[in-house]
Amino acid sequence: MKSIIIETHQREELIDITHHIMQAVTDSKCSSGLVYCFVPHTTAAITINENADPDVKRDIIYKLNKVFPQSDGYYHSEGNSDAHIKASLFGFSEQILFENRKLILGTWQGVYFCEFDGPRSRHLIIRIQSFD
Amino acid sequence: MKSIIIETHQREELIDITHHIMQAVTDSKCSSGLVYCFVPHTTAAITINENADPDVKRDIIYKLNKVFPQSDGYYHSEGNSDAHIKASLFGFSEQILFENRKLILGTWQGVYFCEFDGPRSRHLIIRIQSFD
Amino acid sequence: MKSIIIETHQREELIDITHHIMQAVTDSKCSSGLVYCFVPHTTAAITINENADPDVKRDIIYKLNKVFPQSDGYYHSEGNSDAHIKASLFGFSEQILFENRKLILGTWQGVYFCEFDGPRSRHLIIRIQSFD
Repeated sequence: MKSIIIETHQREELIDITHHIMQAVTDSKCSSGLVYCFVPHTTAAITINENADPDVKRDIIYKLNKVFPQSDGYYHSEGNSDAHIKASLFGFSEQILFENRKLILGTWQGVYFCEFDGPRSRHLIIRIQSFD
Repeated sequence: MKSIIIETHQREELIDITHHIMQAVTDSKCSSGLVYCFVPHTTAAITINENADPDVKRDIIYKLNKVFPQSDGYYHSEGNSDAHIKASLFGFSEQILFENRKLILGTWQGVYFCEFDGPRSRHLIIRIQSFD
Repeated sequence: MKSIIIETHQREELIDITHHIMQAVTDSKCSSGLVYCFVPHTTAAITINENADPDVKRDIIYKLNKVFPQSDGYYHSEGNSDAHIKASLFGFSEQILFENRKLILGTWQGVYFCEFDGPRSRHLIIRIQSFD
């Protein structure tokens, strides 16, 4: 098990972490298996989405904030209930297949750490399950 | 494989099931592995979120109902289309790592059974995958 | 690893793929394990939901489009930002348990390929992990 620190710089931010996952696969020396990625927080998440046009990241954050604004009749006193909801909607884990030491992702797919209540110093947990 | 009965008491309710998952790990006598948790329903789900302030659970349910109200031009005659949508948004499974017989969860993370069309008697399926 | 082609016929469409997953289990000759299903796209997803009344599929698509319409102040020039968001909300993978060569799904559960920017020719990746 590997725990990687992810520094976030804005309240809402999608950070490409695909290279961290690739590195974990390389370090494992396994040829094929599943990479388990887990976010041990309650106001951050993990997702997959387009790795080409940065406007996609902007549009995701923009629209989530439009539907789930920060203030909206919430009781939770920390003022980040919107972030808790967004995190449950996007989810806390991804499992990604690898074969011949390469991640089985689509051409346009990148894996993103989703910060919804930053900036903060966050953790990402990665565990390789080998099929060799 | 273990099937646990979860009794729900309201239409929408988040029920902390972390202790059930911990118990399944203890019962398995495995030291490390992945716990697979699955909800075999279509109007209930599973998620992870804050285990400290109960207002977070309230805010999640409140806001989901505001964006996805029970009546909204739906065709499905059972009157629970909102619950079907919420279930797909939150998802039906979680996989959680354990090491040295302890769940790898963040400090503030609890695992929640999400009832969206209760009260009902529900099932939760748990299966341990050992790394030992 | 198996890659199946899924032809979609509308912009938004939920296509039952449960039989493809069952077939992969049968072909594997494994008695028990986990089936990993993955969508290698960024405007399509996978979910589980009701396999009985087709109105549930209609209501899911209808309501997602009401909350996340195709035009809504997006920057991404391809005009499919709504599809990118819906895909991250529903998610790109499911893992389903099987025992005695049968999928462990609830009575009313079917597995659905979710097209959010069709019609297109899509891929679905399936990988069996055996517990035998």
